[in-house]
Amino acid sequence: MEMLESTLKARLEDTLRAIRPADAAATADAKQYLDGLLKPVGSLGKLERIAARIAGMTGSRFNEVARRAIVIMAADNGICAEGVSSAPVQVTAVMTTNFLTGGTGVTVLAEEAKASLRVVDIGIATDLALPGLDVRKRRNGTDNMRRGPAMTRLDALHAICTGIDVAGELADSGIQMLGTGEMGIGNTSTSSAVLHALTGLPLETLIGRGAGMTDEQLAAKTAAIRDAIMVNGPFSGDPVEALAKVGGLDIAGLCGVFLGAAARRIPVVIDGFISSVAALCAFRLCPDARDCMIPSHLSEEAGAQHVCAELRLEPMLNMNMRLGEGSGAALAFPIVDAALAVIRRMKTFEQGLVDPKDYVDKWKEEELP
Amino acid sequence: MEMLESTLKARLEDTLRAIRPADAAATADAKQYLDGLLKPVGSLGKLERIAARIAGMTGSRFNEVARRAIVIMAADNGICAEGVSSAPVQVTAVMTTNFLTGGTGVTVLAEEAKASLRVVDIGIATDLALPGLDVRKRRNGTDNMRRGPAMTRLDALHAICTGIDVAGELADSGIQMLGTGEMGIGNTSTSSAVLHALTGLPLETLIGRGAGMTDEQLAAKTAAIRDAIMVNGPFSGDPVEALAKVGGLDIAGLCGVFLGAAARRIPVVIDGFISSVAALCAFRLCPDARDCMIPSHLSEEAGAQHVCAELRLEPMLNMNMRLGEGSGAALAFPIVDAALAVIRRMKTFEQGLVDPKDYVDKWKEEELP
Repeated sequence: MEMLESTLKARLEDTLRAIRPADAAATADAKQYLDGLLKPVGSLGKLERIAARIAGMTGSRFNEVARRAIVIMAADNGICAEGVSSAPVQVTAVMTTNFLTGGTGVTVLAEEAKASLRVVDIGIATDLALPGLDVRKRRNGTDNMRRGPAMTRLDALHAICTGIDVAGELADSGIQMLGTGEMGIGNTSTSSAVLHALTGLPLETLIGRGAGMTDEQLAAKTAAIRDAIMVNGPFSGDPVEALAKVGGLDIAGLCGVFLGAAARRIPVVIDGFISSVAALCAFRLCPDARDCMIPSHLSEEAGAQHVCAELRLEPMLNMNMRLGEGSGAALAFPIVDAALAVIRRMKTFEQGLVDPKDYVDKWKEEELP
Repeated sequence: MEMLESTLKARLEDTLRAIRPADAAATADAKQYLDGLLKPVGSLGKLERIAARIAGMTGSRFNEVARRAIVIMAADNGICAEGVSSAPVQVTAVMTTNFLTGGTGVTVLAEEAKASLRVVDIGIATDLALPGLDVRKRRNGTDNMRRGPAMTRLDALHAICTGIDVAGELADSGIQMLGTGEMGIGNTSTSSAVLHALTGLPLETLIGRGAGMTDEQLAAKTAAIRDAIMVNGPFSGDPVEALAKVGGLDIAGLCGVFLGAAARRIPVVIDGFISSVAALCAFRLCPDARDCMIPSHLSEEAGAQHVCAELRLEPMLNMNMRLGEGSGAALAFPIVDAALAVIRRMKTFEQGLVDPKDYVDKWKEEELP
């Protein structure tokens, strides 16, 4: 094993060891406190669960996540040579440029949610010199996984460790919540392949139309992914192996973001299908990493419901969205804000059991409840 | 017919006549414009649909709803004498007091969503003299519908017209979006009864545990509602009749809010089960009123999915919430904001097809897509 690979392997292992399960006492305290607020017990549903889960992440009952960022991992995929996408590969670079100049879906939704964007070139095929672009790539895109592994194990480890670094740096800068996003033409193909490699679920249930494709294009995509599985399989269940053989640098980078957020105990909101597959990789590497993950929406992409089921995280939003980029994560940020406002600012039951007699001209009952 | 009743009847009929369907040209224009934005066509799902629907309401492609209010209709229900609720009837007055002093679920969520609250006493059993309470009632609660009609037709018309007035006054004051909410112990019982009267759906599928009740309490509630249906039926399908016989002043008032919002062509976000039943009443009185309704979340209450199906409006949020008060409507406001930001601020496809060569050191392809 070359030295860089052993260094990266050690870095990943250190991170996995640093990830602890949620603070059960803090979660229980928050739940108990929420049960005493001025509402029927549990009637705020997932808002209460989010508030209690974040208490478990930070160890404190009351939390705020005013400083938040969406990490967009951008990379190209060699499988695009097989015509698996309706969009030309250059769109990865074009859209990355637009993330930095503004006016994309995720840009607008992040602005609405008062979140900053961290756009990382983790493997775009072209070298962009864009102000604000965080270039961290080891290679320009992956190889064609229909012919062999998409990348080496070293490449995959490097991308994962890059994601860990990015999450850690953002946490250091005071960021209190992350969201995940991606840009990479062909990355629904790699996501479907990784999901199959990790779960063994029937491939045809995991492949969708991505940004939009004809029946013919879908058939070509399915054939290419099926071949990639044949060529690269069998799979051992190791997420690093799956990412290297049939994954993408974007998915590997996001896997690292989930691990890095968990190591720093900050909530990380999962976007759609591709982000969810990255979250599943992180979960398989370290089940406790799941304790810092917050689901957002159920993507329209075919495999999305399967990966949510594997993660046992039920999306909050059902918007029929399939844009990716981090758009769904941004849309969920105000819901997390709302959950934390509920636990911070609602009255307790005792505080709310005011005697309306103090305010009332006429009161018909002798006794208050 | 006494003079007041004919006056109110005329007022309702004038409002129904004033409600026009969505502006099809404006909706189509918005859809076409959205299709030209920098994303795969339709990939922002319900966000795009909301933006196009609101264009249809206002007649303009670009809209803002920065000024918004949640209308809470508070009233008591005579059926509570039959033990249909887990909470004492005094809670209606107690919680109404808390809406005005702060710290309730809807208060906190409305603050998060930068929405004001309009709290209307449309039939609380006690007379509260609270600063900020908008007292508009004709009677202090309803009669026990297990023994006879909950109220007269005149009472129902009065409550509906009150809701129309409140929505109109808020629109006059510059409010650009409404949400609905309610407080009234026993109002899941009246909602289930009205839903049954309007749809004929099996009663047992429409009755839930409200704020939380034991199996025994649920059986008592079911028996009471079943008797109320027997005593007051058969029903002609007229929403005013259903509201008068087995409804509540809160539901009738909210029905008016939906009609008033539609007459003024401003979006009105439906909260949970009780609000949805009021929306269905408005829809049955005037199908075009539906064009201004925006769904929010799927309530945990048993009948919620049935009323959504009747309204053909699919909730965006799946939060397992069952608080009412307008809490779900408030939570949906940022999603509406996001939808309107998308259409206002996203680049068009042409604007986004930047040439990365302008920014790029090295570009590997000859031609851009």
